[in-house]
Amino acid sequence: MSTVLACRLGRQTAKLRQPVTIRSWAAVAGSMEGQGRLGSGFDEIMADDLMGGKSFEDAEVRILVGAVQKALGKVGRSPGDVDRLFAGDLLDQIVTSNFAAEQLGIPFYGVYGACSTSAETLSLAAMAVDGGYCDMTMAATASHHLAAERQYRYPVELGVQRPPTSQWTATGSAAFLLDRSGEGPGITHVTAGIVRQLGVKDPNNMGAAMAPAAAGTIWAHLEETGRSPEDYDLILTGDLGKVGREMTLTLLRDEGVQLKEESFLDSGLLLYEANAAEVLSGGSGAACSALVLAAHALPEMLKGRIRRLLLVATGSLHSPKTFQQGLPIPGVAHAVAIEGGNGR
Amino acid sequence: MSTVLACRLGRQTAKLRQPVTIRSWAAVAGSMEGQGRLGSGFDEIMADDLMGGKSFEDAEVRILVGAVQKALGKVGRSPGDVDRLFAGDLLDQIVTSNFAAEQLGIPFYGVYGACSTSAETLSLAAMAVDGGYCDMTMAATASHHLAAERQYRYPVELGVQRPPTSQWTATGSAAFLLDRSGEGPGITHVTAGIVRQLGVKDPNNMGAAMAPAAAGTIWAHLEETGRSPEDYDLILTGDLGKVGREMTLTLLRDEGVQLKEESFLDSGLLLYEANAAEVLSGGSGAACSALVLAAHALPEMLKGRIRRLLLVATGSLHSPKTFQQGLPIPGVAHAVAIEGGNGR
Repeated sequence: MSTVLACRLGRQTAKLRQPVTIRSWAAVAGSMEGQGRLGSGFDEIMADDLMGGKSFEDAEVRILVGAVQKALGKVGRSPGDVDRLFAGDLLDQIVTSNFAAEQLGIPFYGVYGACSTSAETLSLAAMAVDGGYCDMTMAATASHHLAAERQYRYPVELGVQRPPTSQWTATGSAAFLLDRSGEGPGITHVTAGIVRQLGVKDPNNMGAAMAPAAAGTIWAHLEETGRSPEDYDLILTGDLGKVGREMTLTLLRDEGVQLKEESFLDSGLLLYEANAAEVLSGGSGAACSALVLAAHALPEMLKGRIRRLLLVATGSLHSPKTFQQGLPIPGVAHAVAIEGGNGR
Repeated sequence: MSTVLACRLGRQTAKLRQPVTIRSWAAVAGSMEGQGRLGSGFDEIMADDLMGGKSFEDAEVRILVGAVQKALGKVGRSPGDVDRLFAGDLLDQIVTSNFAAEQLGIPFYGVYGACSTSAETLSLAAMAVDGGYCDMTMAATASHHLAAERQYRYPVELGVQRPPTSQWTATGSAAFLLDRSGEGPGITHVTAGIVRQLGVKDPNNMGAAMAPAAAGTIWAHLEETGRSPEDYDLILTGDLGKVGREMTLTLLRDEGVQLKEESFLDSGLLLYEANAAEVLSGGSGAACSALVLAAHALPEMLKGRIRRLLLVATGSLHSPKTFQQGLPIPGVAHAVAIEGGNGR
């Protein structure tokens, strides 16, 4: 019994029995996302917005299926080898993931965590392996700028001007194959987020809406693991953007937690270094942190330049309807700690 | 290592190390749902469609929070005692669950499985406890007829006529508190569904869209556990309705699996025995199978009249947009096996 109980460190954080290996991963990115310095890290850069599909939504399904297949192909595996797919996306009823799951034929649990989906799927997929319920599992997510804009805000053809606090939904998909053994960086801890809102109602300022959740999850993770920020070579947030990142730093400083600027980076800023003027406060979208994890952080772990990483994916949990009804935007942040790799 | 591996029985099914106790549960039902013979099993029947809220969506949040609080209250617990809330609903971006989670303050993983959400949340919540990652977890779901109709189909004020194959989205919410120990029925196995579609495109015939998934999950569960239908006193499907139930029986018969009519019941039919003419093919909605589990099946287990139950919750994974785009409806079915109780 004690071995079973051993892995709960606190209310939000569990330590896995053994690191669950991220055995393989793949990322498909939009053309704009492919322009930054992360471009060379993507497995495919989309030639156009449709990828041979009939709609932006159809294209989103295609890139999610493509990312899963590429991740499997790198280690000579097929969908039939995978026990469980944990996937989610931004579209109503997560239809991207549902339709991709149908094509892949992998037993499927759909999740919704908005832009926190990357860490949510990695958390659930890692526990399913670590707990012995599955052998290999896949965590995947996708978003498409043009599908998201017309669902959440306005069709881009309208040319509505965006305020400087607004963020840019990333186009892309990334998939991560988790295994009980094998070489590669390993997931060691998962921290579940508590949903928080402090009254922010502006969907063009999601960074501010998500900052309290990000700060809360980082604080809980450090507290429950007994670690300090210095224990991490990189704390990578999902998509707080400029505004949310500053707020998170301030909120944590008020709680006595000092994050080092150089090792506290935001996926939404990293992804769009080449397009900073256009994306305004930074990137967002379910794919955003997943793309940066796949194209930047994990490769850096393989090279031994990052030994311990805390991915803190943040999600803004509103809908167009709750915005129209005048409700505030709840935020959430889920975290996974990843260690090691081949590089050392 | 062998103890860790022991619980994967097959690609879709895992056996939990120990039964995870459903220690407490509660259900809040709409007024129409309260009229049937299950009425006395609900903890609260809604006095009106708004429950003091400003909108049907707001009311849905209120009943989800209410169901969770009632389930906790029965065993003298509060939200602060719960490590994880797994919840989902039908609304875009699962805002019901997101806003309820914010009010409850329980670390939260949001899921989307349409009407399969009851079994999906129970599966994930049970593994989180069994694996030692959490102490107590809560699985909850909700749906509201009037919120769902205006999102998925037409505002009810339009009075659009519904075809005889159409189903009725249930109003209500149910919550289940899972614990490592204590008295009560226990979850013993979880079976994850594979998404299937056989070309059904009519959202007014969801039973047909979900039947292949239901049959597939029941088949996989029996195959991987080595059990036969006779091992279950009740196989309770989510919301196949009349049409989907008949199709599922036929599909399984073609595979050599004979289900007994009297121990193969559908939540969508049980919930609306008193309103059969109005609901046409039967009930549906994320709350449907959860309400029947809470108000009928689990109480029957406490009385010793059901000793072993297989809940097979089915979900129709389309969206209004995929329907408009002419795409078929993918279906999924997740299952949990529940045993025992206090009654024997």
